[in-house]
Amino acid sequence: MTKDTLPSKPAKRSNAISPTRMEDYAEWYQQVIKEADLAENSPVRGCMVIRPWGYGLWENIQQGLDRIFKATGHKNAYFPLFIPLSFFEKEAEHVEGFAKECAVVTHRRLEAKPGGGLMPAAELEEPLVVRPTSETIIGASFAKWIQSYRDLPVLINQWANVVRWEMRTRLFLRTTEFLWQEGHTAHATADEAREETMRMLDIYERFAHEYMAIPVIKGEKCSWERFPGAVNTYSIEAMMQDRRALQAGTSHFIGQNFARASGIRFQTKEGGEDHAWTTSWGVSTRLIGALIMSHSDDDGLVLPPRLAPRHVVILPIYRNDADRERVLQYCRALEAELRDQPYGDGRVQVEIDDRDIRGGEKTWYHVKRGVPLRLEIGPRDLDAGVVSVSRRDRPAGERNAVPHAEFVERAAEILGEIQRGLFDRALVFRNANTREIVDRAVFDEWFHYRDDEKQPHGGFALCPFVDDPAIVDALTALKVTVRCLPLDQQPRSGRCLFSGKPTKRWAIFAKAY
Amino acid sequence: MTKDTLPSKPAKRSNAISPTRMEDYAEWYQQVIKEADLAENSPVRGCMVIRPWGYGLWENIQQGLDRIFKATGHKNAYFPLFIPLSFFEKEAEHVEGFAKECAVVTHRRLEAKPGGGLMPAAELEEPLVVRPTSETIIGASFAKWIQSYRDLPVLINQWANVVRWEMRTRLFLRTTEFLWQEGHTAHATADEAREETMRMLDIYERFAHEYMAIPVIKGEKCSWERFPGAVNTYSIEAMMQDRRALQAGTSHFIGQNFARASGIRFQTKEGGEDHAWTTSWGVSTRLIGALIMSHSDDDGLVLPPRLAPRHVVILPIYRNDADRERVLQYCRALEAELRDQPYGDGRVQVEIDDRDIRGGEKTWYHVKRGVPLRLEIGPRDLDAGVVSVSRRDRPAGERNAVPHAEFVERAAEILGEIQRGLFDRALVFRNANTREIVDRAVFDEWFHYRDDEKQPHGGFALCPFVDDPAIVDALTALKVTVRCLPLDQQPRSGRCLFSGKPTKRWAIFAKAY
Repeated sequence: MTKDTLPSKPAKRSNAISPTRMEDYAEWYQQVIKEADLAENSPVRGCMVIRPWGYGLWENIQQGLDRIFKATGHKNAYFPLFIPLSFFEKEAEHVEGFAKECAVVTHRRLEAKPGGGLMPAAELEEPLVVRPTSETIIGASFAKWIQSYRDLPVLINQWANVVRWEMRTRLFLRTTEFLWQEGHTAHATADEAREETMRMLDIYERFAHEYMAIPVIKGEKCSWERFPGAVNTYSIEAMMQDRRALQAGTSHFIGQNFARASGIRFQTKEGGEDHAWTTSWGVSTRLIGALIMSHSDDDGLVLPPRLAPRHVVILPIYRNDADRERVLQYCRALEAELRDQPYGDGRVQVEIDDRDIRGGEKTWYHVKRGVPLRLEIGPRDLDAGVVSVSRRDRPAGERNAVPHAEFVERAAEILGEIQRGLFDRALVFRNANTREIVDRAVFDEWFHYRDDEKQPHGGFALCPFVDDPAIVDALTALKVTVRCLPLDQQPRSGRCLFSGKPTKRWAIFAKAY
Repeated sequence: MTKDTLPSKPAKRSNAISPTRMEDYAEWYQQVIKEADLAENSPVRGCMVIRPWGYGLWENIQQGLDRIFKATGHKNAYFPLFIPLSFFEKEAEHVEGFAKECAVVTHRRLEAKPGGGLMPAAELEEPLVVRPTSETIIGASFAKWIQSYRDLPVLINQWANVVRWEMRTRLFLRTTEFLWQEGHTAHATADEAREETMRMLDIYERFAHEYMAIPVIKGEKCSWERFPGAVNTYSIEAMMQDRRALQAGTSHFIGQNFARASGIRFQTKEGGEDHAWTTSWGVSTRLIGALIMSHSDDDGLVLPPRLAPRHVVILPIYRNDADRERVLQYCRALEAELRDQPYGDGRVQVEIDDRDIRGGEKTWYHVKRGVPLRLEIGPRDLDAGVVSVSRRDRPAGERNAVPHAEFVERAAEILGEIQRGLFDRALVFRNANTREIVDRAVFDEWFHYRDDEKQPHGGFALCPFVDDPAIVDALTALKVTVRCLPLDQQPRSGRCLFSGKPTKRWAIFAKAY
C-alpha cells in the first residue's frame, strides 16, 4: 500500500485483522471474511457456505440489479440445473471451454454396498452435466418460443447456482459452486443484439459505480479470453487493493453461433428465415470478493452503504438496571425514527445490539462486519440529547457527538457521503497505480515480483496491443494477463510490446484474480 | 363439479381451455399451464422450464414469505448443492427415505470418447449427492456455529433448488428438480423447538389464506407419512377442485436426531452439555400447482390478486391513427394513476397491451393468464370518461362501465374483493365436499372411483383414526391416504374404520396428489 493513497489507521492491533494487508494480502482476505462471518469453506470440496451476513450482501446485490434488469424490459425465468450431454456437445468451442470443469451426474439412486455404506445405482442412459452456464439448455427453449420476428426480442434473466469444478478455490473468488445471474436474449438483427450487449455492460458499470462504489474499466476481451462460443466478450475490470485486476462482470455478443447450434430460427419481417442473434451476460457472488478487496482495511470489512445489510447499529451503554431501561427506551425511539428515513432504494436499516457482551468486543464485532455507522448511547448522551457517532470509513476510535435530531435528519446524507468517499478513494488508488507503458523493459520491471514480498508490484499497465495468441506464452511467463481493450480510447499509434507489431489499439495489462 | 359450489360459466368454448375440468381434469391442468405460459417440460427428463409468467408467481410467493420469515427473526443463508455420501449416511431413517431418488455426481470432467462424443472422466473419490433436502449439510455448519446456549436459537432459511428423482412427473406438482425454501433452526430446549415448528406451520396457514386464497387444514401427519428422521411432521392440506388433497407445506420437529447425527452440541446455561433441538420446514414451487388447481376455471388460469404478477391490463381499442394516439395517451395517464395506488405489500401492477393483434385474441390471452382486471379503453369510453372493466372472477363476457376516477380510487378495493371471493368460494367448495364418516361401507362408497369418470368421487372424509401401519394396505387398495390429524379437534370417541380399535382422535382421509 502506498502511504499517500491508503491512509494507515491507528488501530488497536489486538482487535484488528491479523495479518494486515501489507503483511499478507491473501491471508488478510480470508481473515476479513472469517471475522465478518461472511462465508466459510464447507465439507464439500470447493463449495462454500454463505453465512447470513454474506448472503445479506448478495440479496442486496440481487435486488439492486434485478430492479434495473426489470426496468430495462427483462423478465426472470428458470431453466433446469441439468443439461443432457448431447445438448452440451452442440457448440464445439463451448464444450471445449467447459469440459474440463463439469460435474457429471451418472446415477439416479443409492443402494446399500455389500459390507456397509452406500453406492450409486441405476446408471443413467445419458449422463447429465450440472450447468456451468445455460446457453445450450436455454437455447432449446428459445427454439420453441421463437417462430417469427414478432416473438423478438426475448429478454430473459435467470438467478441460479452453477458449478464449474475448480481445483484451487478461494471463498467468493473461485468456488466450484457459485450463485449468479445469467441474462440470455435473442434478437432479430445483429445490431439489436450488439446494442443489448453494450446496454448490459453499461448497466454493470453503473451498478459497480453506484452500488458497489468500485470504479471499473469497460472494455473488450482479447481473443483468447473470450467466452467459449462468443463472437465478442466485454467485461468490467476493477483494481483490488493489492493492485491486481478482478473481472467483475461480462457481457457477450454471441452472434448466431448458439442459434445455429440450438436451431433458433425465425421468420423475418420480409418473409424469409434467419437464425436469431443472441447475447448473454452475467455477474456472480464473485462481486462480494470484489467488494471485500476494494474497500476493506486492516480493521476488517468495509461496506458501501448501498449494499450493507445494516446501515446503523445502535449500541446501548449502561451500568445498572435503572439506566438500562431508560437507555433502551431511548434507543428504540431512535431506531424507529431512523427507520423512517428514506435511503437508496428503501429506508435506513437499523439494529440495536443489546447483547450482554463487553462494550469493546461489541464495537469491534460491528467494525469487522463493516456496518457503516455505529451509535453509542449512554445515560450521558441521553441527558445531553446527543448520539455518539462513529463512521466505518474513519479510524475506529473516532467518535463525534451529534445532536439527536440533527443525526436523524442527516443519517441518509452521511451514508451518501460514505458511499461517495469509498468510490473516490478507490478511484484515486486505481489512478495512482495505473501507468502507460510503451517499453518492454519498463513493463517487466513494473510487474516484477520479489520473492520477499507478499504483494505484486505494478498495477494496471496501459500498452499498445495487437491481438495475437503468439504472445500468450510471454505473458504467462510474467504471470500477467490482458484484462481488456478499454472502450473509451481514441486510436493512438504504438507498437505491441510483445510482437513489435504496429497498432492503434491499447489494452490494460495486469496480474489478475 | 357440483353446480351449487362452482357456477358454470357461459364461455366462448372455442377460446376456452379444452378439455374442461369435467371432461378431463388432469389434461385440463396441463392445458391451463400451457395456455398461460406458466411452464413447460424440458429436454431433461422430469425437469421443468418455469416461464416468466410462472416465475413471476414464484417471485411473489418468495417475497411474501420472505418478508414474514424475516419479521419472525429468520435469516437467509446458502449451503452447498452437493452433499458428500458420508454425510448423507449419518441419519439412518433419512437416508432410507431419500436413497431411491438421489441424483449422484460421480465425475468431475468430460473427455472425448473414442469414436466421437463425450464421456464422463476423472471419477470422484467420494460420490456427491445432489441435495434432496439439506438437513445433513446444514447440520455440519450448525455444529461449527453452535458452542453455547448463547449461540441459540439459530434461525436460518435457504431459497434453493433441490433434486428428487421422479419417474412420473407433472409440472409444478412433482418434478425431479424443484425450487423451494427450507427453514432450519436449532434451539436449546425441546419446547422452544416445538414452538418454532408450530409457529412456522401457522405462518404457512396464514400465507395460504391471505396470499394464496386457499383454505387449508393444519394437522399432524401419521407415522408413515412423517419426514424421514423427524419426530413429528405437520402439514397444511388443501382441497383441489377435483376434490383431491394437496399437501401444500410441511413443518417438522426433528428432536435431537439430526443434532446427534451431525454433532450439534452446546454448553447449557447450567454448565452441562446437550444436543440441540432442531426443526425444518418448507414449501416449494408445488404451491403454484395448488394455486392453479384451486382457482382456475374452464377459461384458464385464475390468480389471487395478492400473487398475480400483473393486477390490471389495459387494452387500448382504436380503428385509425388519429384515435390511436388519443387512446394511447389516455391509457398511459390511467396507467400512471393506477401505479400510484397502494395494494398488498406494494402497489397496483399495471400493463398496457398495445400489441397489434385481434381484440378477441388479446382479451383471451389475458383471460387465460388470469390477470384479475382487464380494462378496455376505446374512443367512446374516453369521451364518456369511463373505463370498461372485466373481472377474472366473473364470466369472461361481463363488462361494466365505471367512471374513470371512481375506478382508480376503487381498484385496490376491487382486487381485495376478488381475493376474498376466491377464498370464500374455495372454502364453500371444501366444506361442501367434506364429510364425517364413521362407517366403512360409507367410506368405501364415498371414495369409489367409477371407470367412466375422469374425476374421483368423494372429497375429504373425517374419520376416527388409530395410528397403526397395519392399515396402510387397506388404504392403498382404495387409493386413499391419511392426510393429517387436524390440530383444532376436540377429543371425540369413535372406532377406527380399518382396525376397529377405539380412539378419540380423528383424521382427514382423501385421494391425494
